[in-house]
Amino acid sequence: MSNNSYGKAFTISTFGESHGPGIGVVIDGCPSGLELDMDKIRLEMQRRKPGQSRLTTQRKEEDEIQILSGVFEGRTTGTPLCIFIPNENQKPKDYAHLEQTFRPSHADFTYQTKYGIRDFRGGGRSSARETAARVAAGAVAKQILETAGIKILAYVQQVGFIQVEKSYQELNLELTESNDVRCPDPETALQMEALIDTVRKEKDTIGGLVRCICTGVPVGLGEPVFDKLHAELGKAMLSINAVKGFQIGSGFSSLGMRGSEHNDEFYSENGQIRTRTNHSGGVQGGISNGEDIYFDVAFKPVATIMQDQNSVDADGNPVIVEGKGRHDPCVLPRAVPIVEAMAALVLVDFWLRNRMTKL
Amino acid sequence: MSNNSYGKAFTISTFGESHGPGIGVVIDGCPSGLELDMDKIRLEMQRRKPGQSRLTTQRKEEDEIQILSGVFEGRTTGTPLCIFIPNENQKPKDYAHLEQTFRPSHADFTYQTKYGIRDFRGGGRSSARETAARVAAGAVAKQILETAGIKILAYVQQVGFIQVEKSYQELNLELTESNDVRCPDPETALQMEALIDTVRKEKDTIGGLVRCICTGVPVGLGEPVFDKLHAELGKAMLSINAVKGFQIGSGFSSLGMRGSEHNDEFYSENGQIRTRTNHSGGVQGGISNGEDIYFDVAFKPVATIMQDQNSVDADGNPVIVEGKGRHDPCVLPRAVPIVEAMAALVLVDFWLRNRMTKL
Amino acid sequence: MSNNSYGKAFTISTFGESHGPGIGVVIDGCPSGLELDMDKIRLEMQRRKPGQSRLTTQRKEEDEIQILSGVFEGRTTGTPLCIFIPNENQKPKDYAHLEQTFRPSHADFTYQTKYGIRDFRGGGRSSARETAARVAAGAVAKQILETAGIKILAYVQQVGFIQVEKSYQELNLELTESNDVRCPDPETALQMEALIDTVRKEKDTIGGLVRCICTGVPVGLGEPVFDKLHAELGKAMLSINAVKGFQIGSGFSSLGMRGSEHNDEFYSENGQIRTRTNHSGGVQGGISNGEDIYFDVAFKPVATIMQDQNSVDADGNPVIVEGKGRHDPCVLPRAVPIVEAMAALVLVDFWLRNRMTKL
Amino acid sequence: MSNNSYGKAFTISTFGESHGPGIGVVIDGCPSGLELDMDKIRLEMQRRKPGQSRLTTQRKEEDEIQILSGVFEGRTTGTPLCIFIPNENQKPKDYAHLEQTFRPSHADFTYQTKYGIRDFRGGGRSSARETAARVAAGAVAKQILETAGIKILAYVQQVGFIQVEKSYQELNLELTESNDVRCPDPETALQMEALIDTVRKEKDTIGGLVRCICTGVPVGLGEPVFDKLHAELGKAMLSINAVKGFQIGSGFSSLGMRGSEHNDEFYSENGQIRTRTNHSGGVQGGISNGEDIYFDVAFKPVATIMQDQNSVDADGNPVIVEGKGRHDPCVLPRAVPIVEAMAALVLVDFWLRNRMTKL
Repeated sequence: MSNNSYGKAFTISTFGESHGPGIGVVIDGCPSGLELDMDKIRLEMQRRKPGQSRLTTQRKEEDEIQILSGVFEGRTTGTPLCIFIPNENQKPKDYAHLEQTFRPSHADFTYQTKYGIRDFRGGGRSSARETAARVAAGAVAKQILETAGIKILAYVQQVGFIQVEKSYQELNLELTESNDVRCPDPETALQMEALIDTVRKEKDTIGGLVRCICTGVPVGLGEPVFDKLHAELGKAMLSINAVKGFQIGSGFSSLGMRGSEHNDEFYSENGQIRTRTNHSGGVQGGISNGEDIYFDVAFKPVATIMQDQNSVDADGNPVIVEGKGRHDPCVLPRAVPIVEAMAALVLVDFWLRNRMTKL
Repeated sequence: MSNNSYGKAFTISTFGESHGPGIGVVIDGCPSGLELDMDKIRLEMQRRKPGQSRLTTQRKEEDEIQILSGVFEGRTTGTPLCIFIPNENQKPKDYAHLEQTFRPSHADFTYQTKYGIRDFRGGGRSSARETAARVAAGAVAKQILETAGIKILAYVQQVGFIQVEKSYQELNLELTESNDVRCPDPETALQMEALIDTVRKEKDTIGGLVRCICTGVPVGLGEPVFDKLHAELGKAMLSINAVKGFQIGSGFSSLGMRGSEHNDEFYSENGQIRTRTNHSGGVQGGISNGEDIYFDVAFKPVATIMQDQNSVDADGNPVIVEGKGRHDPCVLPRAVPIVEAMAALVLVDFWLRNRMTKL
Repeated sequence: MSNNSYGKAFTISTFGESHGPGIGVVIDGCPSGLELDMDKIRLEMQRRKPGQSRLTTQRKEEDEIQILSGVFEGRTTGTPLCIFIPNENQKPKDYAHLEQTFRPSHADFTYQTKYGIRDFRGGGRSSARETAARVAAGAVAKQILETAGIKILAYVQQVGFIQVEKSYQELNLELTESNDVRCPDPETALQMEALIDTVRKEKDTIGGLVRCICTGVPVGLGEPVFDKLHAELGKAMLSINAVKGFQIGSGFSSLGMRGSEHNDEFYSENGQIRTRTNHSGGVQGGISNGEDIYFDVAFKPVATIMQDQNSVDADGNPVIVEGKGRHDPCVLPRAVPIVEAMAALVLVDFWLRNRMTKL
Repeated sequence: MSNNSYGKAFTISTFGESHGPGIGVVIDGCPSGLELDMDKIRLEMQRRKPGQSRLTTQRKEEDEIQILSGVFEGRTTGTPLCIFIPNENQKPKDYAHLEQTFRPSHADFTYQTKYGIRDFRGGGRSSARETAARVAAGAVAKQILETAGIKILAYVQQVGFIQVEKSYQELNLELTESNDVRCPDPETALQMEALIDTVRKEKDTIGGLVRCICTGVPVGLGEPVFDKLHAELGKAMLSINAVKGFQIGSGFSSLGMRGSEHNDEFYSENGQIRTRTNHSGGVQGGISNGEDIYFDVAFKPVATIMQDQNSVDADGNPVIVEGKGRHDPCVLPRAVPIVEAMAALVLVDFWLRNRMTKL
């Protein structure tokens, strides 16, 4: 069953485990004729890869991409585009102690019970390494969207209780890449970095919020009633490891508002129908309305901590899970390109589907 | 394209507009052999229908259901089960003034632009009336889940700033249906009702939060990596009209926690592996872990208010949208059965899909 | 599971049993803006309906269509279009004797075993009455294709051993509707009619071949590698009741040819690349090449005969199945609009999907 | 769009071009817990590979398989199983002359027109090399089916006008692999081989018929009304390169029979309900009835001949396509494992889907 596929028009299917030969993705439905910029794909891979700063895991993975199909003389051919990312730097023996142990708040127990077997090395299929394949596919999607003037920019809005106080409109989003934490507000970035440093020293982890802004989205993307634009964005984000919540536009803060305050008044500007406010977050009735799309993705503190924890083995016997290995104290900086990738995959899918709307 | 379908194993397809002949749903993949209890379906329809209390719209719709196929001598046959709910009490002329007007924060503008045409009577396809079909299908799903010991109970957790302070474990969820607002905490219910009354008198609307609890879910439901259980729950909830946010387990509150605090410690109890806390919300790695599944759904204040509002017509000319008709000041009470229905549809889909997991 | 749906872009889902309330179809993905000609739909229903001539069953069914959704002021809105055809003239007691009996070469035994229950009245879901829904949906598809200059014409090529000797190019296909058997060769038609009369008097049934021609199909329809145009045509045809074989272009006769004879030579005519022969049947590599698409569909003699037959009941006990009721001695005349409908559904699906091919 | 995927429960997605890095397949939905026998996969690859006898192309390709994911310690894990087959022995310069030329009855013209670009080296995506991925996936499917006692055996029934006169029941199907042409009737095999030799010397090609027998299939596989067992078999077979026709059971020969002759009488034998004849080919109403499933697949003479042919280039100018390279004079011997693979993929998909039928 296509459990490992996403998208109806631009369909990606990912495969691979964290400690097998590699991770890959097949894109079926990539339009033909795109001049594929490999450097742009590599750039996104760099943004996601481990070991990129002191804030992230110190594992080194180069994440070299190999195009196995679907590109000819630099252009997409309309046939399935397969990208493969070989695993390297594997230390399987690091994981031998996990064969019989269920790490707290990991997928060990549920995978073992559901499938009756699991690749216990580093999480196997449930490892966030799978998101490397998403980022590669998303980098292709982004290039398609660029041809339509659609841009996607995410940043770290919050780490623990430290958050950016400014709205996204008040920020210079080009600064996002200027610091290791990927927060476009330099002062807040410094505080976040300090907090992550503290947390790492405490051998603990911490969560946060990624905010994502999509600009240039034309009116009409999204397919009610089930495949509403924000419903698919929600699913796509919630399918990322460690995500516990999603909100679009006013989101949970809409609870404190009255309808008369929340409604976005229409007006006309240069022949274009716009809204004066954007509590809707750029989506009305499940369809983009031409305003900026913005949404938040909540990441829990990651489950792998450098402390001993109580747990059980497969027989239910008490065990101690030791904290060891090289892991992220906070995934937020590396989550930014993943959120962008998933947003790009949602938008490119609807952008293609929208071609079939009218006679 | 199956934009109006949900579910891969238990697939529902809804059709119908608010002011056409009726609303319906086709269920493809309903297992054969279910003794269908029509009263249980009718009960859910009653919980959703307008005019059920002074807190909701005063429109009267009986929402009689007709089974058009798939049931023989009281049992499901495994063929498509179509349920049709004729519309009644239609007053199309009430909507003539909307032909050329885009109501703020409704789907009028986006539908008109996307499709080049729209049934402007009462929202047409974008009307929340479509959820009647979901509730009918969900009532079938619930009956299947009951055979497996799975129960779904939702309630109103918050209206405006008034919220239930107790956790769901501290509440008697059987009290949910004891008041019009569907809040199992009687005192809070009274406050919510008073607030809704106030808001209605102010010709305004207000939003809130529905909390949903699924008990008896076996380990193993959910299909990583994209069709994670909570990702599908998120999509399903976000596809309901007026929903702006979703969180599962600790959700957004996980941001304030450290990993060492957030992790759910495993232990063994009577041969069953359990977790001492449940910040995960019953889902780990996208798969149910046997604990209660609980999540929140944020509803914005509905867009239809009884006040005049500035807007534009299709040509961009300024118009005044008058506030008239019979509408809900707060959809939360009626949203409870809709949330339950969508949760049931997600769970029954995964419950069937899980049959294919192991050799 | 979407077992009762066909098409990825223009998705139809049929529901209904032969002796329940009615038969219906939901079309999801019908483009907005089509001026729907109801008379054209009714005409196709007339071509399929029973009792239209002495060659078919004498059951009278009017097959009135009801549009339940998706059309507003005569035009499609892009929302699901539901068409319902109430059943009438039901005589369920005619079928009481079948409750415990498996009719030879019908679906009684397989449905009963697979589902553990079946609506035994007149075949229930397995009845060819379900094709009424396909014809209705196909009539919508045809109208869309007409806007693109695509036409679909089928006719009866063979009944028993009597076949049209001329190629389709030598025939005037406008004569197809001029006789009850739907054969555009008037002399052959007379022979076919005589044969069917004979077969009916013998209380027996007979099969035959429908040939279908699609003209005006642009280059580019069909989606390799699995969704090849002729593969989908094959599936669509084989999903029609009583079909046992399918061939496209040279089909089975290609076995007697050498490659040098079979290959279709390209040439250029008025700037268009054409083929001198068309053994390919208008499809190369699974994609339409602009030439006529033509294919054959083999229908077995229908299983319901007016003779007593040996069979067993559900317990395996020998029983006699009596030949009674009102049935077709030969379904070929009524199969013509069904073949056309399924061809239209395949083509419209690919026509829409092709919009997503190129950047 | 999932054009390159097949199957709803056991979903395969193939990728790769004939002269790119390789060909691969991702299986999503492979049940966990299968002890994967790599030798059985290799055996099937050997049966399909070029250069295996003088009857086939003399290209040498080893078709080594690499498991990239989804298998752990020899067993399937329920996660996507990716198999990759690197291309070797590529001589791209052999194809430079095809850049601007459309080979007759190949997919060059349709791919170029549909996509605006094509990998012209050896057919690229439209090459029958893609079937290597199908055979690999089919070899996994076969192993699953074996656990349920289901076997699939195909053989060459006809080459040109030379055909096996015996029914499949009269043949010893274990002899199929005893000769290069894969015909279980030794005498006919010799005639076929002689014919193929002749055709090759004439620098021409010839087609034929593969017959396939599936035994041990339980009652209940197949999902009406669109996903009928024989409809999916038809689609699967027609999606194989060079296939022009499909028939099941009596097939086209049913045209010469009366219903009273064609109907398969039920009887009971040792508590099992059986049919005395099997004109139905093991499928009734789209569902397997427990009898042998048998069907025929018609292959045209392959388009690549060793003769000069007239054609045009992309601008419509006349060109001569030279006959060169190493190609099959008759694909039938190598088509046998491909037909078996596709049949296995259809059956395993329905075998899994059938688990969801009953409550």
